[in-house]
Amino acid sequence: MDIYDAIFKRRDIRQFRPTPVSGEILHRVLDAAHHAASVGFMQPWNFIVIRDAGIRRQVKAMFERENARAMANYAGERRLLYESLKLEGILEAPLNLCVACDRSRGGKVLGRNTIVDTDLFSTCCAIQNLWLAARAEGIGVGWVSILDNDALSTILELPSNVVPVAYLCVGYPERFPDEPMLETVGWQKRIPVDELIFRDRYGCKG
Amino acid sequence: MDIYDAIFKRRDIRQFRPTPVSGEILHRVLDAAHHAASVGFMQPWNFIVIRDAGIRRQVKAMFERENARAMANYAGERRLLYESLKLEGILEAPLNLCVACDRSRGGKVLGRNTIVDTDLFSTCCAIQNLWLAARAEGIGVGWVSILDNDALSTILELPSNVVPVAYLCVGYPERFPDEPMLETVGWQKRIPVDELIFRDRYGCKG
Repeated sequence: MDIYDAIFKRRDIRQFRPTPVSGEILHRVLDAAHHAASVGFMQPWNFIVIRDAGIRRQVKAMFERENARAMANYAGERRLLYESLKLEGILEAPLNLCVACDRSRGGKVLGRNTIVDTDLFSTCCAIQNLWLAARAEGIGVGWVSILDNDALSTILELPSNVVPVAYLCVGYPERFPDEPMLETVGWQKRIPVDELIFRDRYGCKG
Repeated sequence: MDIYDAIFKRRDIRQFRPTPVSGEILHRVLDAAHHAASVGFMQPWNFIVIRDAGIRRQVKAMFERENARAMANYAGERRLLYESLKLEGILEAPLNLCVACDRSRGGKVLGRNTIVDTDLFSTCCAIQNLWLAARAEGIGVGWVSILDNDALSTILELPSNVVPVAYLCVGYPERFPDEPMLETVGWQKRIPVDELIFRDRYGCKG
């Protein structure tokens, strides 16, 4: 698949078909993630592939607690709209994937002297690679961000030096919509890209 | 360009040719960045395109101060190797690019109730998109991470709610090497991807 096609047709997916993802395809997608940029070539990521139903039920229960808290931020129509949104596919997707960052892997890593979060940033670059490679394979990915990371770390038995960065639902989607779901339902519009570009200094246009 | 080609042939570039990057190509690359995943569709990024020589000289001087500090972490052969590395192309690249994150853009954004750094994570997804689209256009990108972000914010006149996430050198490279420079010079090896993959829980293999 062409790179621009993958970029423009990638979506956050929450509706999955039960069809399993083959080990071969999964490996290709994880290898794509592993070839992301990492500051000082530290490769700080780990990939935890979760199929176990018990673990997923624990994650789902934790999501529901957190989502109830999140919902309390909204009122009126916005609240009704929020309640109608499907925000995860933890149990339906054939697999879940936690992308974690080992914050001790690099030690004193080249390029990490001044900006300590470059390991987290590198891990996010890997996540975008994964998402695009999955798209090219016809596989959907949905990022579940309404989670308690401490609880997730306990469930997945992460050591203290490893933090979860993304919890992803992965599988063949019912479809790839033409635009983001939050745009379709009127939650949030796409910002015109030219509004986000400045010249030389913040706020300078042209 | 095929997505896997872009992913596997992307490199961190520090040696640039002076050939300018056209406005049309730059716009395509920034639009690819703008189509990254963002939690709650918050699109928290800004792109500051820096061509001004005075600003770049200020950034370069600041890099040199920070790099001197970073160098003090190494001794012996490792120090000599470090000193030999070219870590940026701030003045040679036809343009520099600061990808910043507006931490106030989303306000109470959907999906950001529990994990507040999802805006930074989304911005990093945009950076990886940008990097891959640039690769497909034959354009190299180098991430300069040895910087003082407070000083950079002052130079670029960022408001207090906007933080720099990446400072990138952008332009046609002398070449795209077959492997990362830090691998070639023996600084750091690529980790076999299978060592990074676990099943169901951290540390479980197979």
